[in-house]
Amino acid sequence: SRSINLAVIPGDGIGQEVVAEGLKVLSAVLPQDVKLETKEYDFGAQRYHATGETLTDADLEQLKGHDAILLGAIGDPSVPSGVLERGFLLKLRFAFDHHVNLRPSKLLPGVATPLAGQPEIDFVVVREGTEGPYTGNGGTIRKGTAHEVATEVSVNTAYGVERVVRDAFERAQARPRKKLTLVHKNNVLTFAGHLWTNIFTKVAEEYPEVTTDYIHVDAATIYLVTDPGRFDVIVTDNLFGDIITDLAAAVSGGIGVAASGNINPSREFPSMFEPVHGSAPDIAGQGKADPTATVLSVALLLRHLGYESEADRIDTAVAADLTERAGKPARSTSEIGDALAVRVAG
Amino acid sequence: SRSINLAVIPGDGIGQEVVAEGLKVLSAVLPQDVKLETKEYDFGAQRYHATGETLTDADLEQLKGHDAILLGAIGDPSVPSGVLERGFLLKLRFAFDHHVNLRPSKLLPGVATPLAGQPEIDFVVVREGTEGPYTGNGGTIRKGTAHEVATEVSVNTAYGVERVVRDAFERAQARPRKKLTLVHKNNVLTFAGHLWTNIFTKVAEEYPEVTTDYIHVDAATIYLVTDPGRFDVIVTDNLFGDIITDLAAAVSGGIGVAASGNINPSREFPSMFEPVHGSAPDIAGQGKADPTATVLSVALLLRHLGYESEADRIDTAVAADLTERAGKPARSTSEIGDALAVRVAG
Ligand SMILES: CC(C)[C@H](C(=O)O)[C@@H](O)C(=O)O
Ligand SMILES: CC(C)[C@H](C(=O)O)[C@@H](O)C(=O)O
Repeated sequence: SRSINLAVIPGDGIGQEVVAEGLKVLSAVLPQDVKLETKEYDFGAQRYHATGETLTDADLEQLKGHDAILLGAIGDPSVPSGVLERGFLLKLRFAFDHHVNLRPSKLLPGVATPLAGQPEIDFVVVREGTEGPYTGNGGTIRKGTAHEVATEVSVNTAYGVERVVRDAFERAQARPRKKLTLVHKNNVLTFAGHLWTNIFTKVAEEYPEVTTDYIHVDAATIYLVTDPGRFDVIVTDNLFGDIITDLAAAVSGGIGVAASGNINPSREFPSMFEPVHGSAPDIAGQGKADPTATVLSVALLLRHLGYESEADRIDTAVAADLTERAGKPARSTSEIGDALAVRVAG
Repeated sequence: SRSINLAVIPGDGIGQEVVAEGLKVLSAVLPQDVKLETKEYDFGAQRYHATGETLTDADLEQLKGHDAILLGAIGDPSVPSGVLERGFLLKLRFAFDHHVNLRPSKLLPGVATPLAGQPEIDFVVVREGTEGPYTGNGGTIRKGTAHEVATEVSVNTAYGVERVVRDAFERAQARPRKKLTLVHKNNVLTFAGHLWTNIFTKVAEEYPEVTTDYIHVDAATIYLVTDPGRFDVIVTDNLFGDIITDLAAAVSGGIGVAASGNINPSREFPSMFEPVHGSAPDIAGQGKADPTATVLSVALLLRHLGYESEADRIDTAVAADLTERAGKPARSTSEIGDALAVRVAG
């Protein structure tokens, strides 16, 4: 019989609330014969304040035993900027080699968007997750003086770029439009830019059916608001991916519905699924948070584990729910979760 | 008697056409007693193909003699990506220490925007121009092999950050709303992030009337499409500034009306003014390019040289012209230039 052994990290702020709904929908969608085991972990601001720990080696050992990880949100204003981001979120991505950061964007009919004319939006960003300016390489000299110099080193390897580019080509190949866009800034960041562009061009030869193009990251932000329909699959570096996926979320229904997967395709380590939004401390504990992004992250999780039809059922339920929302009064976090649980079970 | 000794660099593609209109409007707006001298330079793709040169030391010596530089656009698909960008555009910014890259965004009534609901947009981005990931620091080992490693080093100095932050506070102080937002990614790029944040906080003490806030660059792209009215002055790093100003241009009337100044506030070297758009080879030579961004860059140039009322007249003329455009058939490059020249003269 099948089973899913899930690590659950509610985290900070609205993380608790949205994860509860994600689990509700997960339980509702799974067939009877699939045994769902969950173990909750208390990472985040509270544990940091209590113990000074963000993510220890022992924690990583424990997490390794799971099939996948569902995370709500990590981060709180009481913790200095960077401590939980570098000490937990990025540490986990690097430790488990989550090199494919998958972020789909789809604007459903009737869903609010800041863009005029309700354009068609249906693309997925494959963001590199373990290299680029995120490695923590760099340093500071003469800190706090008038002569301080601070550096950040973007590290890009053929190994790291090729595997994510290849993953993106596979995804593009599997989609109807079969189009892949490389987003970089190869006219200014020429060292990394050449590496990315050369590998992209080389791998493209193995995928003759995939149409390719290249756009500078600055121009990509223009297209995301003027012609988002031009994108099918985008592959890009860690930092550019961070920036354009927030914009992509904003134009395709908002950060409340943007899901993401931090994926290790080799399955050597568990992959981690989380909403793109943060912990939103200003609305935490009020039942106001939209759990949709977490529920969609559960769909990505299921697809990663091979539960295709269950993932599809969640996507369909969310699409129906989003389309029906327009013009109705706002529902609470658990009301939305309940509605989605009913739909996926039904 | 007063005089302006201007270096004119039409450059590639539509550069020639838009610069002609910029000069037309400049001549029309200047009072009789101001002597305008211009010298044209042939930088760009043609010269590169003919001589292999992009910008020599002798060129820089010549350019130094001018009061300011007006540039159309540099770049052509026939030149490998990066050659003209690094060899000309960035070389010039670095050589003349253009550390304040000024990019205003204002959405005028009736002007087309991809955003629904015609939001109020009126802010200016102060982008650092001589540091960050743009320095060309970095390198490649094992090029072209499966073991290639390419690095890009973002270099940030207290000297470089403080002067641009100070410039931004001055600009915020002079505006009615007196609000300054720092945009960075200090939770991930912690070395550079601490430097920027600390200096921003320190300088803020000297400007008690200026309201300050901080936003991560990814979140900034969200606000630029959902709530652009929250911005008054933004100060940010070279790369983040590159990205968000293209997005800012897109939402506030398009890249056809986005002006920029590469400014050396000390006036030790001439400052350079250029439209944010590129050379657009696909429409070059057809009289289709909108010269408005170049004309607005001329206004920034005049303001930099102390011709306040002339700069204001250009801004007013452009605002009137843009508002009148809505719903009318498109005009040619020179028709727009003519209309603006008539308005500023009148
Ligand atoms: C919180 C931060 C470390 C993270 C990132 O920059 O990757 C977030 O912005 C995201 O996009 O998941
Ligand atoms: C052409 C390129 C070097 C330049 C930059 O990245 O600064 C351009 O995008 C700009 O914004 O002026």
